[in-house]
Parts: sequence; C-alpha cells; structure tokens
Amino acid sequence: MESEFLDWLRQRLPASPLAELGLVDDAAMLRWHDRSDLMATVDVLTDGVDFRLDEIDPRRAGRKALAVNLSDAAAMACRPVAALVGLVVPRLGGLRLAQEIYEGLLPLAEHYGVTIAGGDTNSWDGPLVISITLLAQATARGPLRRSGAVVGDMIVVTGAFGGSILGKHLDFEPRVREALLLNERYELHAGIDTSDGLSLDLARVAAASGCGAELDLVRVPIAAAAHELANKQADGSTALDHALGDGEDFELILAVPPEDARRMQREQPLDVPLAIVGQFIAEPGLWQVDADGRRGKLVPRGYEH
Amino acid sequence: MESEFLDWLRQRLPASPLAELGLVDDAAMLRWHDRSDLMATVDVLTDGVDFRLDEIDPRRAGRKALAVNLSDAAAMACRPVAALVGLVVPRLGGLRLAQEIYEGLLPLAEHYGVTIAGGDTNSWDGPLVISITLLAQATARGPLRRSGAVVGDMIVVTGAFGGSILGKHLDFEPRVREALLLNERYELHAGIDTSDGLSLDLARVAAASGCGAELDLVRVPIAAAAHELANKQADGSTALDHALGDGEDFELILAVPPEDARRMQREQPLDVPLAIVGQFIAEPGLWQVDADGRRGKLVPRGYEH
Repeated sequence: MESEFLDWLRQRLPASPLAELGLVDDAAMLRWHDRSDLMATVDVLTDGVDFRLDEIDPRRAGRKALAVNLSDAAAMACRPVAALVGLVVPRLGGLRLAQEIYEGLLPLAEHYGVTIAGGDTNSWDGPLVISITLLAQATARGPLRRSGAVVGDMIVVTGAFGGSILGKHLDFEPRVREALLLNERYELHAGIDTSDGLSLDLARVAAASGCGAELDLVRVPIAAAAHELANKQADGSTALDHALGDGEDFELILAVPPEDARRMQREQPLDVPLAIVGQFIAEPGLWQVDADGRRGKLVPRGYEH
Repeated sequence: MESEFLDWLRQRLPASPLAELGLVDDAAMLRWHDRSDLMATVDVLTDGVDFRLDEIDPRRAGRKALAVNLSDAAAMACRPVAALVGLVVPRLGGLRLAQEIYEGLLPLAEHYGVTIAGGDTNSWDGPLVISITLLAQATARGPLRRSGAVVGDMIVVTGAFGGSILGKHLDFEPRVREALLLNERYELHAGIDTSDGLSLDLARVAAASGCGAELDLVRVPIAAAAHELANKQADGSTALDHALGDGEDFELILAVPPEDARRMQREQPLDVPLAIVGQFIAEPGLWQVDADGRRGKLVPRGYEH
C-alpha cells in the first residue's frame, strides 16, 4: 500500500524550505540554526507483522524497533542522537510488556549513544505497537543520499544476504559505525540500507540517481541463512534468490567511485566483509550478469509495503 | 499505567547531557549545535481510546493527533517546526483511511507552519493507530517549564473548562500562538497544557515547582459544555466538577508574577479570555476557596494514564 499512498501524499505536501530530501531518502534532513544536518525518521512496528510476540522474547521486538531506525541513520551516514518511543500495549500484562520492550532497546540505545528523549505509553485492547522516531546528525561530509550514484560507480555492499527471517531480522547489527567510518575514509556517492531486499533497494538507488545498475551475480555474498532457508523450503527458490529478494538484511549498499571501491576492498576496514558486486551503468533499470557471463534484465524483488 | 511505568523508566534511563528536562515536562529539550532549543515530543492516539472511528469523520482523528502535539509545544511556549507521522491502518479500506487522516492533519500543519518531515504507513488487522512526533523550537526566552512557579505567582488560564468530551477534545485549537504571544509580552514562570484536567495538571505544576496552589473556585471559567454535560449525565456531578476534572481541554495554565498577571487580565491580549483563578502558595498540595470563602483541600481529579 505504501508506494501508492506516497504518490498521493507527495502531491499534497507543500514544498518546504525546511526539509530538503523529504520523501525520497530513508529520512528527512531538517534545517536547524541554518544548518541542514538534523536527520529525522520514524518507523512503526506491529505485533504480527514485524515480529510475533507468541514466538519471541519481547526484548527482541524492542531492540528491533530501535535497530531499524538506526539502520536508516546508517543509510545516510548520520550519527544517531536521540529517540522518542511511542508504545501501545495490550491492557493485560501491558506494564510488564512495556518494560520488556525498553529492556530490549535501552542497551542498544546506550551502545550507540542514543538518548531516549521522550515517550508515550498507552494501553488498549489491541496488539503491541512500537513507534520510534530517531533524530540523528549528519557529519561535516553531509548526509549520504540515494540519488548520488554516478555511472561507473561500483556497487559495494556490507555483509551477506538472504534468509534474514530465520533470525537476523530481529538481531541484526545496524551498520551505523560502518557507514560513518566508510563515509569518513572513502568517497561515497550514494547509500541505502537493505530493508526491503538487495535487488529492490539497489533498484531504488539507481532510479533515484537517474541511472541503471548491473549486478554480478557470482559476487553477491550469500548468507548461510539463505542456503538454510532454500533447503528448508524446497520450493525451487535458490539461496541466491533469497539473497536478492529477501527483506530485512539491513546491510549497506553504497555507490563508490572505482578507485575508492578497490581500495576499500583491499583494505577491508570493517569487522564485516565489504564486497564489490557490480556497477552503476548508463542504461536504466536493473541488470544481472550470471556465472556464465550472460547478461539480462533482473526483476527487482523484495518486500513491497 | 503510565505513572507507575514512568517511575520504573526513570530509574533505568542514564543521565544525559543532551536532554535537559527529560521526563518531567511536556516534552524534552535537546541540545543541537550547542543550543538547547530543540523540543521533541511524541503522542500516540488509538481508535477506541482517543477517538471512535465508528462515530466520527477520520479527518477529525488526524487533526486531533497533530493538535495534541501542538498543545505540548504551546505548553512550553515553543514554535512548532516539523512533524513525523507514523500510521497503522486496518488492511480493509486502509489506503482511504490513511488519506483521510492526512486530510485532517495537513491543514492544521499548514496553519501552524509545520513541515511534515517524515512518515511511516503500515497496514495490519488491528484498529487505527496514529503516532506523531513533533519537533519545535524554543524562542530566545527559552522553553516554559512546569517547575518555575514561585510562591505568590498568580494562576492564569486561557479559555474555559469542562465537558470537552462533547466535542472540544477533537476540535480544540492548540494554544500555540497564545503561548508564544504571552511569553513574549509578559513574564511567565511556568506553564502546562490541560490535557488531563485542570486540577490534576495544576497540581503537577505545583509539585514540579515545589510549592502548592490555591484555586478560587468562583473564578474558574466553566465551559458551556460542562453545564450541558452535568445536565445530561445527572449523576450528581456539577458543571464545576467537570471544569476541575475533565481531561482534554488543552487550555494553558500559567504561573505569572502578580503584576504581569493583572496587566494580562486588564489588556486581554488574546482572542480567547484570560482569567486569574488563584495563586501559588507555600503550603504544598492543592487547595480550594469556595464561594463562601471556605478553604479546604482539593483532591486533584482528571485523566490518569
């Protein structure tokens, strides 16, 4: 529903000199004291959609709710600063549940230096809802955007992809430190976090940048969980299919000039592997080159809201 | 549930140099570029608790969700700047409902110069949830706090009280402009908006300021709706009872030095009436003086979360 809704909304929002990026990037950048370095983003997670409280410890739901916001800050290479936490809990056992949600998110907040700057906790007869707003600050380099990729840039990714539903979607580490470090040491042209799927999010960067992207399939890092899921489901989907289409990996896709990309790959400055998986090209759309060197269209797959 | 929960939470939140007021005031003030003028607040509203979609136009729910946040900005005499809107809508008819929510809040946002800086819209099988985060900016005078009342200050209120459930709780005008104007022209020591009830919110200002408050009952402006509700319910509650205890009037309670309070009352600088209804006193707690001059304890009544 969300893309149709966003089209409708874009036509109704007046242009604002305050918010520069608006509805294109992972978050808006706001002008404050004449500097546009205030990043703001909101994510709402619900029981039954983003997690299932009948299956998991509520602390993991609380952690995830903050982590997805942190991942948005990572996507824009911003430093997380403060979070506001809106909770709606079921009346029965709501107090304990609210505490567990906080017990899950507070350690993560502390780890990333995020102040809990406000909250609103309500109870009702419905299921758990967690709405977190994150404020973050761009560095002197400015925010990393989706729209900055140029033809010839390498596609660089962190980590490995696919099978997140087996656990990573709850316990992933948002790539905040990685994004800040890479943005400081290398030239980055564009970035996004893979919340909805490697191919779908890559297609978004290409579209926002007015170019295309060509993925080298053999170079796509496939997570062990993607293999596990492919074996488990046995529905004909390969591990690579999962790597390309599964949502919630929360890794980074970056557009990096070739020289910096090669230096990055050589230096491997992170605890998590960096891989070059293709490049941005002039021809619009998403393309793939397979193991045999055959080139063809790649249909973006992933989680459409 | 909320007060018990907040006690628990206060013990677990690390002290932060960033957020100065934290969990005491209507909103937190954040330091940005070394100035603590960034106010942030979140309110979550749900169908069945804050409004009933089977009874009202959804646009009024959308408007209310933004208005309650604007009222928090008014309470601190801050200028509203930007809002982030988190929505969870029922799958069936969700797109139309999301549009109606925005149709309700966008005119109010425009009226107060608030940029919609971000949003997240999801659908599920549960009822409507609206979570709005508001960012606002303190003026050069700094934010108005709950804790600044001093003994001898007059209690000044805007508007009239009681019976809000008959309609005002949806269609009230947040006292943003009123708060900014008063804060500019007069000396204000403390402020709060009456979200939970005149007597309860007044008691909160007194407690935060380390003093007591004495209400002159004959001076409390009683809304026509309070009389209407008293007649309708015929449960023994008077219109004054409703004025003292009903929630969601979203008027201002201010602590004002006597000279400024009298000048305020004389000048009546607002479109809405200003009234002096009592004063802050050294004796802790909430007190009342009735029509016959009898003095006694006043038990704070209102909406406890």
